[in-house]
Amino acid sequence: MDKGLLIVLSGPSGVGKGTVCTALRKRKPELIYSISATTRRPRDGEVDGVNYFFKEKEQFLTMIQNNELLEWAEYVGNYYGTPIQFVEDTINAGDDIILEIDVQGALKVKETFPEAVYIFLVPPSIDELKNRIEGRGTETADIIKHRLSMAQEEIELLKHYDYAVVNDKIENACSKIESIIVAEHCKRFRFIENKTKEEV
Amino acid sequence: MDKGLLIVLSGPSGVGKGTVCTALRKRKPELIYSISATTRRPRDGEVDGVNYFFKEKEQFLTMIQNNELLEWAEYVGNYYGTPIQFVEDTINAGDDIILEIDVQGALKVKETFPEAVYIFLVPPSIDELKNRIEGRGTETADIIKHRLSMAQEEIELLKHYDYAVVNDKIENACSKIESIIVAEHCKRFRFIENKTKEEV
Repeated sequence: MDKGLLIVLSGPSGVGKGTVCTALRKRKPELIYSISATTRRPRDGEVDGVNYFFKEKEQFLTMIQNNELLEWAEYVGNYYGTPIQFVEDTINAGDDIILEIDVQGALKVKETFPEAVYIFLVPPSIDELKNRIEGRGTETADIIKHRLSMAQEEIELLKHYDYAVVNDKIENACSKIESIIVAEHCKRFRFIENKTKEEV
Repeated sequence: MDKGLLIVLSGPSGVGKGTVCTALRKRKPELIYSISATTRRPRDGEVDGVNYFFKEKEQFLTMIQNNELLEWAEYVGNYYGTPIQFVEDTINAGDDIILEIDVQGALKVKETFPEAVYIFLVPPSIDELKNRIEGRGTETADIIKHRLSMAQEEIELLKHYDYAVVNDKIENACSKIESIIVAEHCKRFRFIENKTKEEV
């Protein structure tokens, strides 16, 4: 059976990762979503193993120590992290799994899963900026320079990723991510890898 | 403006490259098809610059000499080749161009255009074979071994390609190729390349 893919969806804060993920979940229900472990208390209606893996602080610290987390972080006194086991079980079962994560977390995941598919959601503002810069502007050279440098900074983060998807419209971004998943399954090295495993 | 892609569609003879290309042309009319140069006489209804670039033998030999062809071959006394100019003009204009070509030709194209997208159409028989081999077969070990080695030989050619698309159903193969084109346009390095060119 073909192995599933780990798809890491990241990008600058405010770019709309969550919104795109929610839309993608509706369009592509067969895609599995990575479930985080957390030490925060469950809220009403939250189910262990569905919304989160709820852990005691001690359990979480043990997971960190045993390298059971792909990445973790502490926010306002609570720990959040991505359990490796769930990701590995999913891809070994031949299912694709998507992990929505901030840029710092994504870089940590890459240390363990360099073979994952790294997608960077790009804010449309870079494109808008580009258009404005390209247009017959009335801005001073300094402002244009500053804007260019901001755009360059955001683009700089991109170098760690395989794909750049501009989040101009949610449906466009979802379509592109779906195409990327199809294309990645057609990658020659995956094809040969899977065939070889099967035929040996 | 973003540069277009050169998509090289190849695979073993009889795999259905032409059929897939014809179906793709209907589904995706904005995709440009590479036009070959040839020394063979035009048939009724064939138009120069549409079906082929019709050339005298002398002209063709000059094109070879001037490195104006991505690849060329001689069949039954006639020359056939892929003019570089048409491919370059198309991608420089921001349009994608597809080149349907045999495996030998594709490898030659790769020398000039390593950055093109190389898609290998895989006959479904490899998969069928795999299924048969996997199934509780009544075949002798020798037959199984021979079939495996045939499959391995076909897979061997794959190593020069970026993608493997199984031509199980024409519509499936077309969908996958379309997804590959979308995904390739999202490739981070293309995104950065295009942005950098535009902003400098």
